[in-house]
Amino acid sequence: MTALLTAEDLPALARGAALLGTGGGGDPYLGRLLAQRALREHGPVPLVDPADLPDDAAVFVVAQMGAPTVSVEKLPAYDEIGRAVTALAAHLGVTPTHVACIEAGGINSTIPVAGAAMLGLPLVDGDGMGRAFPELQMVLPGVAGVPATPMSITDEQGNTGILGCPTAKWAEDLARCMTITMGCTAIISNYPMTGARARETMIRGTLGLCVRIGRAIAGARAGFTDPVAAAATVVGGRVVHTGKVVDVERRTTTGFARGTATLSGGCVLRFQNEHLIAEVDGTTVVTTPDLIMVLDTATGEPVTTEALRFGHRVSVLAAPADPRWHTPEAIAVVGPRYFGYDTDPVRVHDTVTDGAPV
Amino acid sequence: MTALLTAEDLPALARGAALLGTGGGGDPYLGRLLAQRALREHGPVPLVDPADLPDDAAVFVVAQMGAPTVSVEKLPAYDEIGRAVTALAAHLGVTPTHVACIEAGGINSTIPVAGAAMLGLPLVDGDGMGRAFPELQMVLPGVAGVPATPMSITDEQGNTGILGCPTAKWAEDLARCMTITMGCTAIISNYPMTGARARETMIRGTLGLCVRIGRAIAGARAGFTDPVAAAATVVGGRVVHTGKVVDVERRTTTGFARGTATLSGGCVLRFQNEHLIAEVDGTTVVTTPDLIMVLDTATGEPVTTEALRFGHRVSVLAAPADPRWHTPEAIAVVGPRYFGYDTDPVRVHDTVTDGAPV
Repeated sequence: MTALLTAEDLPALARGAALLGTGGGGDPYLGRLLAQRALREHGPVPLVDPADLPDDAAVFVVAQMGAPTVSVEKLPAYDEIGRAVTALAAHLGVTPTHVACIEAGGINSTIPVAGAAMLGLPLVDGDGMGRAFPELQMVLPGVAGVPATPMSITDEQGNTGILGCPTAKWAEDLARCMTITMGCTAIISNYPMTGARARETMIRGTLGLCVRIGRAIAGARAGFTDPVAAAATVVGGRVVHTGKVVDVERRTTTGFARGTATLSGGCVLRFQNEHLIAEVDGTTVVTTPDLIMVLDTATGEPVTTEALRFGHRVSVLAAPADPRWHTPEAIAVVGPRYFGYDTDPVRVHDTVTDGAPV
Repeated sequence: MTALLTAEDLPALARGAALLGTGGGGDPYLGRLLAQRALREHGPVPLVDPADLPDDAAVFVVAQMGAPTVSVEKLPAYDEIGRAVTALAAHLGVTPTHVACIEAGGINSTIPVAGAAMLGLPLVDGDGMGRAFPELQMVLPGVAGVPATPMSITDEQGNTGILGCPTAKWAEDLARCMTITMGCTAIISNYPMTGARARETMIRGTLGLCVRIGRAIAGARAGFTDPVAAAATVVGGRVVHTGKVVDVERRTTTGFARGTATLSGGCVLRFQNEHLIAEVDGTTVVTTPDLIMVLDTATGEPVTTEALRFGHRVSVLAAPADPRWHTPEAIAVVGPRYFGYDTDPVRVHDTVTDGAPV
């Protein structure tokens, strides 16, 4: 079945993507504006289920790389989004047939909408993570063996780079330093895939899920029911804490927004672009790769790590990651130890039932 | 006329290139070893005068980028030299016909010999500077309008990048951060040129000059005459100071070897990979873009900035740069103010005659 993504879907899509972004993925409002302009200029974008991709489809990812703290001030150039895809396609000598999201999260769920619209291509209704992660080797197609490169990287100054690297971590390191030199944000296209590989390795239905999340939150708000509970139902998650932000420590280093947030009632969140660890009363209740999502308790609006402010009343919602993230190979790439936290992964459904730690 | 560059020419070439390297350009011995291996495996390399290049020749530069202090410990992979050229050629869809040096200096006069030999191509007897400079926008073809990009950058890990940038300074900034991430040295190919453009913009006869300098120094030593004076005659320069190194301050920052050297008798040399300023008795006697070369007083061996040591008896030789370096456009790119020194350019023949400041 082919659905059409229209400008009317964008507010719900952006809100749902911001939630799955687990605190990262950049300001959803900015990406929504870019997607809105592209849909207005080029019309609705067909959504294609990964399961319906032909074997020989040429699937091109497009994403923003960089520190969300910076992307709030330094917007991507509109043209740059299409240029990342066309530069990689020209390098490969391949004509793109589909655009895809590499992560579910904020700006990286809406920039591909803009890219698909301006290139006149359908958008894959899926992504490479089912959430957001901060580094480019942290994608399920990569864990399954799809090379990160050749990849392209572009900026609003007109710089274009094509990288070929022996490992995805080298691609991350080189693209990260280029992103920093470009001013801490860039547009990239990586993990070029055939339809067959995309079908095997991508997560299905992410964009549709984002729209459902966004609509559930808006619907609950309109009906005076609990928007956080509505979101929890759609993502299959649990509320692990509700409290007021009493402290935020945040620094932008080596291209990332790193820090911790402390909530009243004894909850500490640790983040690196995305929320990676949630502790309640000194106990780790959930860690990466499971999803840790922060919402405004009253409105259900997702709160990004760079928007966390003293006094904000928030709810912390945790949901299981795609099971493929819990294999040993995947945990080596996105588990807590990779990020420097001395703990084994903690899965939300092992510790939390009906909103309370076991 | 076509000359053949053989393994017998390499010691003289490397020594002469080290002198024109004005303290930079990396350890000439390392580049000589790479060139020796390539000439042994592939035979002599034909040298082509830029004036004899056909209009439609496809000239590919190859060079090492990075801090000379690091390149002494981290050698380029042999294969990487050819790979920088073939990666750029593949990107451009052009078959290379000639290899060229972008600078005259240490490793960057011998790496292209290795590149030409392994690719089975003739080498242009010329270069883009007539000396060495630390940043990639500092080349006469660039000042004359040849774009620095598309360019390639490779390392011994197997990473390959292709850059397209709106200015040579952007190419410098992006390639520099990649070089640092690659471990502070990389092999690059940039300023791809037709034969017509190379003929108009390159400096002629650099490799032949290097061989003559190297032979003059060796000949003087063998004949018990002054090797520094012999070198001065070949390069048309003046000895501005002779003294003992009494202090060296050196740091490797942002991918460069920066510092100052103080000689007995009141001479201070300021360098950034290359020597850029020479002061005697508090007076600036010569600055970039003119050449400031340091030689062992007894042996005439060129001394690179990273080899300067306390107690070393050295002579400072200054020689005029190619007149194209003294246009206002070129001074903006390589004059003392670009490097942060608050002085107008000082030309050696304006201040120095017969070895003494006027």
